[in-house]
Amino acid sequence: MTPQAARRERLAAVLRERGIDSAYVGRLVNVRYLTGYAGSNGAVLVQAGGPAVFATDSRYKDQAAVEVPDLEHVISRDLIGALVGRVNGGVLGVETHALSVDSHHELAAHAVGAELRSLDRLVEQHRELKDETEIDALRRACAISTQALEQLLSGSLAGRSERAIAHDLENRMFDLGAEAIAFETILASGPNSAIPHHAPGERVVVPGDFVKIDFGARVDGYHADCTRTVVVGTAQDWQREIYAGVQAAQAGGLDDLREGTPVAQSRSTVDRILGDAGWLEYFSTGLGHGVGLEIHEDPFLGPAHPGKLISRTALTMEPGIYLPGRGGVRIEDTAVVTKGAPEVLTTMTKDLLELA
Amino acid sequence: MTPQAARRERLAAVLRERGIDSAYVGRLVNVRYLTGYAGSNGAVLVQAGGPAVFATDSRYKDQAAVEVPDLEHVISRDLIGALVGRVNGGVLGVETHALSVDSHHELAAHAVGAELRSLDRLVEQHRELKDETEIDALRRACAISTQALEQLLSGSLAGRSERAIAHDLENRMFDLGAEAIAFETILASGPNSAIPHHAPGERVVVPGDFVKIDFGARVDGYHADCTRTVVVGTAQDWQREIYAGVQAAQAGGLDDLREGTPVAQSRSTVDRILGDAGWLEYFSTGLGHGVGLEIHEDPFLGPAHPGKLISRTALTMEPGIYLPGRGGVRIEDTAVVTKGAPEVLTTMTKDLLELA
Repeated sequence: MTPQAARRERLAAVLRERGIDSAYVGRLVNVRYLTGYAGSNGAVLVQAGGPAVFATDSRYKDQAAVEVPDLEHVISRDLIGALVGRVNGGVLGVETHALSVDSHHELAAHAVGAELRSLDRLVEQHRELKDETEIDALRRACAISTQALEQLLSGSLAGRSERAIAHDLENRMFDLGAEAIAFETILASGPNSAIPHHAPGERVVVPGDFVKIDFGARVDGYHADCTRTVVVGTAQDWQREIYAGVQAAQAGGLDDLREGTPVAQSRSTVDRILGDAGWLEYFSTGLGHGVGLEIHEDPFLGPAHPGKLISRTALTMEPGIYLPGRGGVRIEDTAVVTKGAPEVLTTMTKDLLELA
Repeated sequence: MTPQAARRERLAAVLRERGIDSAYVGRLVNVRYLTGYAGSNGAVLVQAGGPAVFATDSRYKDQAAVEVPDLEHVISRDLIGALVGRVNGGVLGVETHALSVDSHHELAAHAVGAELRSLDRLVEQHRELKDETEIDALRRACAISTQALEQLLSGSLAGRSERAIAHDLENRMFDLGAEAIAFETILASGPNSAIPHHAPGERVVVPGDFVKIDFGARVDGYHADCTRTVVVGTAQDWQREIYAGVQAAQAGGLDDLREGTPVAQSRSTVDRILGDAGWLEYFSTGLGHGVGLEIHEDPFLGPAHPGKLISRTALTMEPGIYLPGRGGVRIEDTAVVTKGAPEVLTTMTKDLLELA
């Protein structure tokens, strides 16, 4: 059984439990998860008691034949009509968080005699728990990412623009086998490092700068997400101090990524460590998020999340301290939850590097 | 007045005409169009009779302060609550083509006493007609794109993999000032050129190949879209024949991109030219589409479009002939509709190039 067939079977089992007869899945990342289809127009109807049916339009006919060899294909411009027309009454699950109001009306018009019911992000929930194929892709994406950064940092950064350095790093990821970059690289130097999501610009790196690099490679659709912050030249005391604060907080948060631990716990731990050191007010961003076929996906590590962590969930852990006008530090890993300590996929050092 | 303020004023005027008191715009590309905000979480409430209000969350506070200097900002995780809470009854326009069913419910709960009405892709309609700022960005994106391709084709392609050549082209665009690539480059050689949307792979280019390159740079958020097909070595007769067919069809279609011409006309023209030459059955893709802040946007050049073309609409013109298993040709320009001949922004030659 392919990983995709196993995922559909898992979904179909939950549909049966919930009394849902079929599910129309049109959110592309979920379609990819359930079928392997990586194009930009497609949908799948998963049936509780029968085979799934895939639909795309003629532009993607050949690609879909390769990527989705194990399902019946319908080729049509009207994905909703083509698939929902197969539904014979019963309860039809729909992605109300992703389906537009207009598409929902269209779907309802085709689903004559069926009762529509929200899937409540069911496929996203299933995606939280990665199978071996997915973890392997994440491992490869993270290995390429950290290897590229290690190469970059073996050279000099001073005298080069943020944009040029970011571009250099991205090229190294491509050369190492990335199919794409996972997101637009954040490369922030000097005072810019205090901006959590700074787009690399023309500022030239000078000695004394923090350089914060948040980046990643994409492999087989899976995203690596890694941040390291380095100092060019010799670190000043304030730089050492906030670096040590973030490093301790990141280690503490990471240690909470264990099966059975409340999802909210790592945020409490990190806030306590940063608070004890007097830096909490300078940590203004999210702490971490699921990562996989999307760069940001469920679960999000917030104080409000009611659940507990489950093994095989892939998460980032990325606390920071941002001092406006001066500089900032973020350290981020991608890690996989296990029963013991998490498997950190971005295996590069987190000690403070002072570059020549 | 900034271009964004002018766009909001144009939108507000149509809202007044239609009896809509305010519009909640949350589709990010539309938010960018109306405010200049380029982050990944934000929304704007445009009011028929008052100033617009912008909302984002704390991660994007500083970025938004720079990009949207002329509007009141609300900083909140709950964009819908923050903005729709400002609405005092009346008619509230919503993007029913983009807003999810769940968000629509949430919005309705906040819009107490207001009547919700679909905006019917109103902002997308307005975006069809580009202002000077937008056309300038498209010109620069197209200039970078064609310059990068001319550089690439001044060297040799034989003996290099599709992936390596695509990567080389992308690097040249970055070096020339692209902020990103407009979409994942299609670079298809030999028999692969018959696949309309082939992802570049490990196939090595050999003499006798067609090499079809569909690519573009992004500048200030605006996307260039260009395709050229070349021959490595000396073209064979069948290659010359289908190239000439596509070249004639592309010129004919382009000539129809004039103010007042039916949107559907170019498709008729191209189909007639390809049909007369006996190639119509091998043209299996769309003919062209709007291009701007999105790589594919309204209007789409189909036989069913009821409207007429308007000056300042940016469109692609991209007919092709695809012979399965043998090879294919596509020629594509990005062009702007005027009262006379369109302004072609991708100004590189369309004559058949036989590369050394």
